[in-house]
Amino acid sequence: MQRVGYFNGEIGPLDDMTIPLCDRSVFFGDAVYDAVLVLGGKCYTLDGHLDRLYNSCHLAQIAFDMGRDTLKSEIERLISAADGGAEMLYIEVTRGAAPRKHEFPKDARPNLIMSVTPLTLPDRGKRATLVSFEDRRFEYCNIKTVNLLPNVFAAQKTAECGATEALMHRGDRLTEAAHSSILMLSSGVLLMPPLDRFILPGITRAVLTRLAKANGIPTEERIITVDELLKADEILLCSTTKCLLRVFEVDGAPVGGKDEALAQRLQDLLYADIEAQTGVRL
Amino acid sequence: MQRVGYFNGEIGPLDDMTIPLCDRSVFFGDAVYDAVLVLGGKCYTLDGHLDRLYNSCHLAQIAFDMGRDTLKSEIERLISAADGGAEMLYIEVTRGAAPRKHEFPKDARPNLIMSVTPLTLPDRGKRATLVSFEDRRFEYCNIKTVNLLPNVFAAQKTAECGATEALMHRGDRLTEAAHSSILMLSSGVLLMPPLDRFILPGITRAVLTRLAKANGIPTEERIITVDELLKADEILLCSTTKCLLRVFEVDGAPVGGKDEALAQRLQDLLYADIEAQTGVRL
Repeated sequence: MQRVGYFNGEIGPLDDMTIPLCDRSVFFGDAVYDAVLVLGGKCYTLDGHLDRLYNSCHLAQIAFDMGRDTLKSEIERLISAADGGAEMLYIEVTRGAAPRKHEFPKDARPNLIMSVTPLTLPDRGKRATLVSFEDRRFEYCNIKTVNLLPNVFAAQKTAECGATEALMHRGDRLTEAAHSSILMLSSGVLLMPPLDRFILPGITRAVLTRLAKANGIPTEERIITVDELLKADEILLCSTTKCLLRVFEVDGAPVGGKDEALAQRLQDLLYADIEAQTGVRL
Repeated sequence: MQRVGYFNGEIGPLDDMTIPLCDRSVFFGDAVYDAVLVLGGKCYTLDGHLDRLYNSCHLAQIAFDMGRDTLKSEIERLISAADGGAEMLYIEVTRGAAPRKHEFPKDARPNLIMSVTPLTLPDRGKRATLVSFEDRRFEYCNIKTVNLLPNVFAAQKTAECGATEALMHRGDRLTEAAHSSILMLSSGVLLMPPLDRFILPGITRAVLTRLAKANGIPTEERIITVDELLKADEILLCSTTKCLLRVFEVDGAPVGGKDEALAQRLQDLLYADIEAQTGVRL
C-alpha cells in the first residue's frame, strides 16, 4: 500500500480508516503526536522521536501505557505494510474516546493512530524562503499536541505567498517556523532559541547540536530577535521532513548566504548521520 | 436513543459512530463548533449559536456552504431521533478529510459532525466556586475552535479541586472560565470584559446583556482585573449548559454575595426568556 493507516492494532488503506467520532482529538484536539523520517524501511532517530512522544504524553497527562518495545513492533508491522522509499511515519496518541466533557475522562483508554505515507524530501540545494507571521499560539508549544490551528494559519499564509516556511515571532522575538526549527549562523557559531514553552524541542535541531559539538562547531542557545536573525550570516531551517535548508529570503528581502562553508558542513554532517542510520544516501 | 450522533447526514447511536481518520480535526484540531441548549425538543437561541458557528467558519476560513435552513432541518431530524428532556446539541464543522499537510487542502469538503446528549442543568441556587488558572491559551479565543487543550487542563484542575469552573486570567487581567463567561456586578452595573481575541463571545452573556438593557440595568464592557473581580458585589458565571450561577468562592476564599437582589433578577429574566422560547420552565 502507498498510504497505510493504523488504529489500535488494525492496519489498512489510510483513506478508508476511521476513528470513533467521540475521540477527544475530535472534540478538544486532546492528543499528542510525532513524525519520523523513514528511508528504505528504516526509521531515522526513532528513539529521539519516541522519547519526545512519551514526554508529550507525560506533559499532557495522557496515560499511554504501551511499552516502547511493543510500540516499536507495531511501527515495524506498519512500515512493512507500506511500499518503502522515502516515507513519513506519523504517530498520534489521543486521550481516548469518551462522552464530551472537558476534564480527563475516568474510564477512557488512549487511542493509538499511525500512518506511513510517501514523502518528497526537498533537494538540499533548495533556496528556502520565509514569510513572517506573528506567533499567537498558546504557551504550551513545548508539548507536541494537535492544537495546531495557528500553525495551519501560518502554513496557509506561507503557501499563499509561495514561501517555504513561516518565520514566527512573538513581537521582536524569534520563536520557530510553522513546522520546522529556525537556527542561525553568526561568526561561526550555531545559534538557536532557548527551549522554553514557546517552541518545540526539535529532533533535527537536537541532532545538529550533537553533530556540531562532536565536530568542534560552537553552539549557543539564547533569545534571538528578528532583527538579529535578518542580519545573520546564515539562516537555517530544519525539520524531520526538510532535513537542513539554507534560507535566502525573508518577506521578499535577501538574507544570509554569507557562510556557505559552515552551512554546507552542517548539511554534510546531517546527511552522513542519516546514511549511517538508514543506509540510504540522500 | 439517548445519545445520538450525526456525520454528514448519517444518524446513529453516538458511541458507534466513526469519522475518517484523516479528518483535519484529528491532525490539527482544524474545526469549529458550537453547543446549544435543547429543552423539550426545542433549541434555545439557536440563531445566536448558528450566527456564531458561521462566523467561526468565516474567521477560520472553513468553506462550509450548507445553508442555514438546510442545517436547521438536519438539526431537527437529529433532535427528533433523541429522547427529549434537557439536552445538549453539539455541532462541529471540520475543514474536511485530506492527506496531512498543514496548509488548507484544495479538494477537501467540510465535514459536519453533530450529537444530541442528555444534559443535567445545575440548580439555579447552586453556590458556584472558582479556582484560578493562568490563561496561556492562543490569541484566537474569539473563534470557537476545538483547539481546547488549555481549557481541558483548566477544567481538569477545576475538577481536582472540586470547584465549578476555572477563573482564567492573563497576568492581572480576567479573561473567562474554561467553558463559561465570567461577569460581575458592581454598584448595580453588570460588568464584563471586552470582546477581543482573548475571550469567546458568549451567547448567554449576549442574552443577559440584551435582557439587562431592556430592563434598565446598566451594563459596561471593559478590562477587569482579578483584584476588582474578587471585590465585586457579585461574580456571575454563565454558559449554555449552566445558565447563570452566582459565585461564592475563589481559591477557597469567600467572594461576592453582596447583591443578591440584582443577581436573582438577572436569573429570573434569563429563565423567563428560556421559558418563552422553549415552553419549558426550569
